[in-house]
Amino acid sequence: MLTDLQVALNPQSIAIVGASENPNRIGGRPLSFLSRFGFKGRVYPINPKRTETQGYRTYPTLADLPEPPDVAVIAIAGDAAVKALDACGAAGVKFAIVITAGFGESDPVHGKEREREMTRRAHAHGMRIIGPNTQGLANFGTGAIASFSTMFVEVEPADGPVGIISQSGAMSVVPYGLLRQRGIGIRHAHATGNDCDVTACELACAVARDPDLRLLLLYLEGLPDPHHLAEAARIARARGLPIIALKSGRTVAGQMAARSHTGALANEDRVVDAFLEHHGILRARDMAELVAGVELYLKGWQPAGKRLVAVSSSGATCVMAADAASMIGMPLADLQASTTAELARILPGFATTTNPVDLTGALLTNSRLFGESLRILARDPAADAFLLGFPVTGAGYDIDLFARDAAACARATGKPVVIAAPQPGVSARFRAQGLPVFAIETQAVEALYRFMQHRDLITRAGRRKNVNREASLPMARVNMDSSARMLNEAASLAIVARAGLRVIPHRLCRSVDEALAALRDFGAPVAVKGCSADVAHKSELGIVRLNVDGPEALGTAYAEIKAALEAHGAASDGVIVARMASGGREMMIGAHRDPVFGPVIVIGDGGKYVEAMPDVQLLLPPVSEEDVFHALSKLRIAPLLKGVRGEPPLAVDAFAAAVLGISRLMMEPLRGIVSIDINPLMLDAERCMAVDAVVFQDEPA
Amino acid sequence: MLTDLQVALNPQSIAIVGASENPNRIGGRPLSFLSRFGFKGRVYPINPKRTETQGYRTYPTLADLPEPPDVAVIAIAGDAAVKALDACGAAGVKFAIVITAGFGESDPVHGKEREREMTRRAHAHGMRIIGPNTQGLANFGTGAIASFSTMFVEVEPADGPVGIISQSGAMSVVPYGLLRQRGIGIRHAHATGNDCDVTACELACAVARDPDLRLLLLYLEGLPDPHHLAEAARIARARGLPIIALKSGRTVAGQMAARSHTGALANEDRVVDAFLEHHGILRARDMAELVAGVELYLKGWQPAGKRLVAVSSSGATCVMAADAASMIGMPLADLQASTTAELARILPGFATTTNPVDLTGALLTNSRLFGESLRILARDPAADAFLLGFPVTGAGYDIDLFARDAAACARATGKPVVIAAPQPGVSARFRAQGLPVFAIETQAVEALYRFMQHRDLITRAGRRKNVNREASLPMARVNMDSSARMLNEAASLAIVARAGLRVIPHRLCRSVDEALAALRDFGAPVAVKGCSADVAHKSELGIVRLNVDGPEALGTAYAEIKAALEAHGAASDGVIVARMASGGREMMIGAHRDPVFGPVIVIGDGGKYVEAMPDVQLLLPPVSEEDVFHALSKLRIAPLLKGVRGEPPLAVDAFAAAVLGISRLMMEPLRGIVSIDINPLMLDAERCMAVDAVVFQDEPA
Repeated sequence: MLTDLQVALNPQSIAIVGASENPNRIGGRPLSFLSRFGFKGRVYPINPKRTETQGYRTYPTLADLPEPPDVAVIAIAGDAAVKALDACGAAGVKFAIVITAGFGESDPVHGKEREREMTRRAHAHGMRIIGPNTQGLANFGTGAIASFSTMFVEVEPADGPVGIISQSGAMSVVPYGLLRQRGIGIRHAHATGNDCDVTACELACAVARDPDLRLLLLYLEGLPDPHHLAEAARIARARGLPIIALKSGRTVAGQMAARSHTGALANEDRVVDAFLEHHGILRARDMAELVAGVELYLKGWQPAGKRLVAVSSSGATCVMAADAASMIGMPLADLQASTTAELARILPGFATTTNPVDLTGALLTNSRLFGESLRILARDPAADAFLLGFPVTGAGYDIDLFARDAAACARATGKPVVIAAPQPGVSARFRAQGLPVFAIETQAVEALYRFMQHRDLITRAGRRKNVNREASLPMARVNMDSSARMLNEAASLAIVARAGLRVIPHRLCRSVDEALAALRDFGAPVAVKGCSADVAHKSELGIVRLNVDGPEALGTAYAEIKAALEAHGAASDGVIVARMASGGREMMIGAHRDPVFGPVIVIGDGGKYVEAMPDVQLLLPPVSEEDVFHALSKLRIAPLLKGVRGEPPLAVDAFAAAVLGISRLMMEPLRGIVSIDINPLMLDAERCMAVDAVVFQDEPA
Repeated sequence: MLTDLQVALNPQSIAIVGASENPNRIGGRPLSFLSRFGFKGRVYPINPKRTETQGYRTYPTLADLPEPPDVAVIAIAGDAAVKALDACGAAGVKFAIVITAGFGESDPVHGKEREREMTRRAHAHGMRIIGPNTQGLANFGTGAIASFSTMFVEVEPADGPVGIISQSGAMSVVPYGLLRQRGIGIRHAHATGNDCDVTACELACAVARDPDLRLLLLYLEGLPDPHHLAEAARIARARGLPIIALKSGRTVAGQMAARSHTGALANEDRVVDAFLEHHGILRARDMAELVAGVELYLKGWQPAGKRLVAVSSSGATCVMAADAASMIGMPLADLQASTTAELARILPGFATTTNPVDLTGALLTNSRLFGESLRILARDPAADAFLLGFPVTGAGYDIDLFARDAAACARATGKPVVIAAPQPGVSARFRAQGLPVFAIETQAVEALYRFMQHRDLITRAGRRKNVNREASLPMARVNMDSSARMLNEAASLAIVARAGLRVIPHRLCRSVDEALAALRDFGAPVAVKGCSADVAHKSELGIVRLNVDGPEALGTAYAEIKAALEAHGAASDGVIVARMASGGREMMIGAHRDPVFGPVIVIGDGGKYVEAMPDVQLLLPPVSEEDVFHALSKLRIAPLLKGVRGEPPLAVDAFAAAVLGISRLMMEPLRGIVSIDINPLMLDAERCMAVDAVVFQDEPA
């Protein structure tokens, strides 16, 4: 049985293979950190050429140690590292941190194979590997710094409520540096490198259990093991620990760069988005966004709503805060008449007493006006959060009083208070009062709103039934090299119908007579379509005839379609005669199995331009009705669903029911559905109706 | 004749009405700045209670001065300020800077009227007003600081190549503060307040003539005088001075806040976008974006293309730089094979020698590798610009060498080099070498790309024929209260046809017999539509019949349409019988007169959901074919125009010709066209054809 990762996070003993006296060498850094940052456990430098290193007794080999160390850091290059790894396993090391580079990131074939072989040999000894190509782990709660990061030389650590886990070494400490600049303490700053054994996400499961953490930040280049991240998210949600993830390699260019950095394989980026949202993890676009709102998370604020009150000494800050809030959809609080009246009593006539509140340059004459105004605003129940903007202040103003008044408002209301102040000297004084400070109002408003949206995300994730969606993952891998086959339209529609969706009345006809009978039964006009498991895009082959309005036209259509199929060498399974769809919006529901993330549902606008101009949202099953409504609200066509230009609203509940049917279908691995495309799915005011479908299904074994 | 604004920018003498001994009072600040920042002209404090103020001889009234001052700062409150303004006029003051607040921004009716009256009285004396509600002007080239900004107390000025003009006082100095933090010198930092006489944009015309300026930054809340900004842009383009503008009040909430801040009236934000683009002015979203790329403009870089080379000691920086570039559409340079081979000779095997170039932690062992790599990359002709990323560096690295090597690369190539370095100590050392430094790679890449795009914008603006589009502005104002009338479809289509557009063959019929004759001439099927100057949305009234396929159906349609018009009390001008449009994409061309900006053209996707789901671009006439193609390329439907799913490309040249026809029409004020809506305009592979139109035209006087 493999050792609990808590041992890697909190080792009692650490060996350094390739220990160096020089604290700026890779083999010297961890030693200097362990001594400097107060590690209480045993430290064992390994170096056959030395008896003492940086004041520590030094051993020639692992076999000479008085005990098997919990962790060994391998800080030697090339093949020697692989040999050292074997020695670690033999010596009973529990975790080997392999700093050495030049494996899967250099050579995606042989390097990756070498990593797999190293992992196999380690596991045989019950040892686990972190890395290779890693900067190492750092726990500032215990001083267990098994890392060589230059950042810890440059920026003094302080233990605190933030954890960082990153595949990249640099990105494990860039957030550390940026947050330390703002006075925030960091408990964990771990880099995992190529993730050949222990992955960043598996480590996240362990770190998420740290009871002192208030926020967990992740930097990922590849996400081969979403089940670990799903588990980390579950653990974190259960104890109210939010997770923000920066997943890079969003683009083809970025994915290629990621492969030669940490050997990460490409993920479909829109699926990553859907996966993170499904599990209540907020995605950051870049490093600035990853760290922007951290202070908000550390205050324990639980805002009841999202209505913003903006207060500033500058009207321009008010204007830009209002713009920023409106642009992202954050409402401005509508102040009560009594609030406005009270403000008017204390502020000069040229101030603005509605929200946003412009105190004007009057503060230069009387710094107390700020606190007095805040105390009035704090009583207004319409206020959910406050932005206080000081674009310019200094001589003539009592900045410390402003900072104390702002902090008092936060304390008295328990509501979020964010500061926008571009002057470093000013922001430092608000920060000293424990308030989140941003340089400009847009940044403050956006960070506040993201924090609030993240809470919604977590709430929605928490409401999901705890179905283990990963149960259906294994099949996904099978499909990658399986010979899935395309079903013809009739068979596809049959599967769609069995999933509970309403399907356009149709009949597969093997002869003109059968087709004529269908015409009689359905009534003219009908649609006539060639049915073939060889043809995915029927229109482009010219085997679709719409509005066929009588027996003669049907006869012609039948003959032409058969001829067209034959001309293209496509097998003919017959001709479908279908009732014409009677209007409504062309929608689509798709589903496929992502090789990493498993079943994915795609919903959105339908029609022939779905690929050219996609207006779709991705969802991961199991999907709830709430998920569907939320996704529909994010579509470009969302206004149409509500009814515009006198049209009635469309039956989105019927659409949601259809999506849920497909979601259930995709959660049944035994059904072997590899992909479904229902397009169009006609949605009108009363119902939705699948008109065409293409299903790929695994060949029965 | 009114005095040249250069006198306001470079006054020889400045009076302060309401001068105060206290340098933190509004009347004390300008005096202390004039003495502290080396103003060489004469300074005249005015205060009847004093004989000396801050060491300056003080006069009881303006009439007592030895000369009429070029500029008088009015720093007293309320009605006294208005009286002082009259005294200034009488005393021969050339420019009065009215700091006093409480005018149009407090009371949009009486306050604005008061401003107009003040301006009339000032002009009678040949005096001009800056303000009211302004923080004042500041020229650090001469030390003429007629401003009370707290920022100049807090942050030491330095003369430099950047000019800032802002309606808001705070936003005239926030960029000053942010840029001074980065060591950049500022020549001008002017605030204009309510713009009752001299506006921010008129002042920009004067400032743009300063030969030492390399970049002009604007903050605007209202833009009532676009002709001034157009003129400033023209002056600036002629001498290669770029302008970046932050125009706030983008949203309704922001516009409401702006009205009570500087009394600014709302502008239609999409028209502002189009106007700024038309004149080669880059629009900044917020204050961060306004100042982000300033250093790039000051280096004189003229990149030939946009291909980026990213180099970093961290693979993660490479990944995120590649992502950022891809997301905004910036290409990564494809390095020559010889470049890659040369890099491979000097870098370790686990480094990446393709672009982005990952030097890896090997720099920790050998800091010279960075410069050596850069020298190889600098020779590659595929490189147009460089991003150099140092997410973590410090002990063990020769940072000064990195900075010198980076600067040498910029010098040797003449190509833009930007640095991404989040550690303040590191960024300072690159900045000391004169390089633009950003905290993170995304910010660096985005600023670089915006700088390059701005150059394209300026080039496109320069290529426009110098037609004075403001010639057609006055009519716009007339239209605001004129009784423009809607023309019926037949009359509207006639105007469209006269503008040179192809129009669907149609005939206005006054009887069933005329309609039947039209059906015979056009051949079935036809469209039949009620024609009424009372009905803009025909479908919603049920007076459109499509695919009418014979005389009988036509008779029915005719009768029903007449009945529907009657039932709705709409005047009937007859019934239009038109050939059915034969396929293609439904596009639209619209045009209207913005009350401020004059004629505006709107082009985009057509059909019935244009309002509900707009996919349009705005253009200001005179429009060129290049403008139309550029605008089309920004539409969501752009891929369709090129032909997808086997469809041929659409005839965008015919569409452009149609847009140019409408552009010309809107540039003829005498035609009195107030607005046009052509929707749909059917665009197929060969031509475009107006199918329906609504024109509003001024009533003849």
